[in-house]
Amino acid sequence: MLPKVSVHRFSCAPFTNVENYRRLVGGDVIDEIEALAHALKGARVCHINSTGFGGGVAELLARLVPLARALGINADWRLIQGSPEFFRVTKAFHNALQGSAYSLSESDKSIYLQVNRESARLLDDSYDVFVVHDPQPAAFRAAVGERGAKWIWRCHIDTSEPNREVAAFLLPFLELHDVAVFTMREFALPGLDARRTAFIAPAIDPLSTKNMELPDALCLEVIANAGLDTRRPRVVQVSRFDPWKDPLGVIDAYRTARREVPGLQLSLVGSIAGDDPEGWQLLARVQEETAGDDDIYVFTNLAGVGSMEVNAFQRAADVVIQKSVREGFGLVVSEAFWKGKPLVAGRAGGIPMQFPEGHERYLISSNEELAARVVELIGDPAQRKAFGAAAREHVRERFLLPRLLRDELRLIHSVLTGGERRAPPPAAPGAPPKR
Amino acid sequence: MLPKVSVHRFSCAPFTNVENYRRLVGGDVIDEIEALAHALKGARVCHINSTGFGGGVAELLARLVPLARALGINADWRLIQGSPEFFRVTKAFHNALQGSAYSLSESDKSIYLQVNRESARLLDDSYDVFVVHDPQPAAFRAAVGERGAKWIWRCHIDTSEPNREVAAFLLPFLELHDVAVFTMREFALPGLDARRTAFIAPAIDPLSTKNMELPDALCLEVIANAGLDTRRPRVVQVSRFDPWKDPLGVIDAYRTARREVPGLQLSLVGSIAGDDPEGWQLLARVQEETAGDDDIYVFTNLAGVGSMEVNAFQRAADVVIQKSVREGFGLVVSEAFWKGKPLVAGRAGGIPMQFPEGHERYLISSNEELAARVVELIGDPAQRKAFGAAAREHVRERFLLPRLLRDELRLIHSVLTGGERRAPPPAAPGAPPKR
Repeated sequence: MLPKVSVHRFSCAPFTNVENYRRLVGGDVIDEIEALAHALKGARVCHINSTGFGGGVAELLARLVPLARALGINADWRLIQGSPEFFRVTKAFHNALQGSAYSLSESDKSIYLQVNRESARLLDDSYDVFVVHDPQPAAFRAAVGERGAKWIWRCHIDTSEPNREVAAFLLPFLELHDVAVFTMREFALPGLDARRTAFIAPAIDPLSTKNMELPDALCLEVIANAGLDTRRPRVVQVSRFDPWKDPLGVIDAYRTARREVPGLQLSLVGSIAGDDPEGWQLLARVQEETAGDDDIYVFTNLAGVGSMEVNAFQRAADVVIQKSVREGFGLVVSEAFWKGKPLVAGRAGGIPMQFPEGHERYLISSNEELAARVVELIGDPAQRKAFGAAAREHVRERFLLPRLLRDELRLIHSVLTGGERRAPPPAAPGAPPKR
Repeated sequence: MLPKVSVHRFSCAPFTNVENYRRLVGGDVIDEIEALAHALKGARVCHINSTGFGGGVAELLARLVPLARALGINADWRLIQGSPEFFRVTKAFHNALQGSAYSLSESDKSIYLQVNRESARLLDDSYDVFVVHDPQPAAFRAAVGERGAKWIWRCHIDTSEPNREVAAFLLPFLELHDVAVFTMREFALPGLDARRTAFIAPAIDPLSTKNMELPDALCLEVIANAGLDTRRPRVVQVSRFDPWKDPLGVIDAYRTARREVPGLQLSLVGSIAGDDPEGWQLLARVQEETAGDDDIYVFTNLAGVGSMEVNAFQRAADVVIQKSVREGFGLVVSEAFWKGKPLVAGRAGGIPMQFPEGHERYLISSNEELAARVVELIGDPAQRKAFGAAAREHVRERFLLPRLLRDELRLIHSVLTGGERRAPPPAAPGAPPKR
């Protein structure tokens, strides 16, 4: 049997009830979700990816699958069963689809296809719809053959400038899918002639410990006990220690800003994986650069800093920074905006679309611009407040989990009914499921 | 220059002021700390260990060093500068001192001594006292030679049944120290004839995000959003995925208990490092064992679960479990007790000494005993409350950070004055520093 990820109890756990989100996102999207779910009642949906936890995709599925099940949809989540070689190959594919150089060998191809074939053979249940995530299980459709199910390839990365060799190898497998879904139009794989292409932006979960409401006093206590002075202004960047997030640029801009805002404090909060030598190198470089600078704080998951600490640090900041020079979607921007925080960010990947209209001047392209905007915001509490409030509303409408769930249900409904993808007519409550 | 760990601003950050602990630990210990600090004013103390973050020792130093500096003691924290080979060797020493088999080679010895010598040469400042942590820098004293300073070797592990070869190699270096400090008497290295031996138990920081007060409603929201049913009873074990913490035994005992407490839920919350294949294997085994069991929840740092989530999970539990079959000190027990939680734990390492008198029946030695005690406590709210309250008081007196700071200052005062180690007479305020 292909291993199923246990998604816990569905009946009573509060987080599996989409109604909990109604007060946060408003009624329309929840009503539409419930209507779509009614139309899809009993539909058998199988998500396939490569890992049960760790990483953004697993985090989303851990939330979306139970929500769908609580709504009466028979959603499962299964893992492709690979060897270490397979994951070495698919990690290379993953990077290559994002543009890394890679020389594809015949052995890579055969490892990849063999694991997909073997995993497909383990699939014992039947489903109406398969949602295949990222490149790892992208040859499942080919391996399973025609069984009457619909197939969605859900791509979570930017494949707009892929390594040609890997793209050419994968394309025939991807094209067997009924729909290919990208995070945004700009990320689509060139040359992909899937029968249809769709774009669904990711979302943050306002009920997770990273985003839930926290009392102001608690947030101040957290940063105070981490050593910050709560009486002085502070900025924070939350990101992995990754050159594309440019922490050294942040430090440089912060030092420029500090000349005009004496006492300004900077926190860099980020996670780092054991198997990421590049990240460790950068962290060491950051620590070297900041040694002896008592107003720069560096916190990592290694010291127990988890989602809730990140939440508190964002809420306790006067201005949030996300100086990405290259970015996927950059959901951390929505996380800060949802907390009503003003944010200065690099103009990269999905960041601009998360900005509320009229605040584009806080999209920056240099250390100097970053410093200037930080100084400006620190000096203007009214502007901070207005920007934060507009940003929170923008995120409420577009980047919260229920919107993502709705879009996915719309898509599934559409592929099952063969209807128009973009606006499937939600069934009226009481109408028979359209299958 | 031997790299110094930046310990941030000392003057104003609330967490560096020992007065913040007064309301938690009472006045006597704080008064004694302040008197000792007065006597030690200006003393130059240098802590040396191998890492600036990650791990319990770094966590403690990150707190103790700024507290000491805020008290007027010139405390520094420096890192030994090793190569990857050096850390391979010292990791092996670390395990060997705890009893692992190891065949010590001449090359290991020479790598170890060379790095200690080279790091010692980088030491440019002079100090009155060196506190050398664990085996990595244990040959510093030999390398530095006689410069009039006092030397303390602070051992944080159980060395009572060491690998003989490694112990024999290290002993001559350890014996050059003025005092060797172990966590508890039972952990002392046999054969060590340091001039003196002392025992100082570790402590938890009640102001850290792992232990700070959190509103009850917030804790319930955290577990609800993680999928638990807040209306049904729940137990939790917080620990690394390590065979010595016996998560499979916990699951077995939980299943036994559930027969008598229908609806009981179990959470296993733990961190796992990227470079810990044994941990990954165990986690996979746990996930396999719990797949399909909707009332067992497994959470790791990989999903963003950090200190504050751990705090919330402990506070929201009815009973906490720590089924260690082998343990160092096991500070997680004090963490739960400080939150006023009843706890059932394995009789191992430092766990028994953390138990409040009269509650030893909750020290268990088998899965069956664990199950029976859990059932008993779940059925007896009054006993849960009384046990939790007694436990909190026990921890307040013995296992909070200020007591540890006091003991360390007593020891430093004692080695500097050549006085009696156990009860150095604290100087009266206004008295000249005794140096």
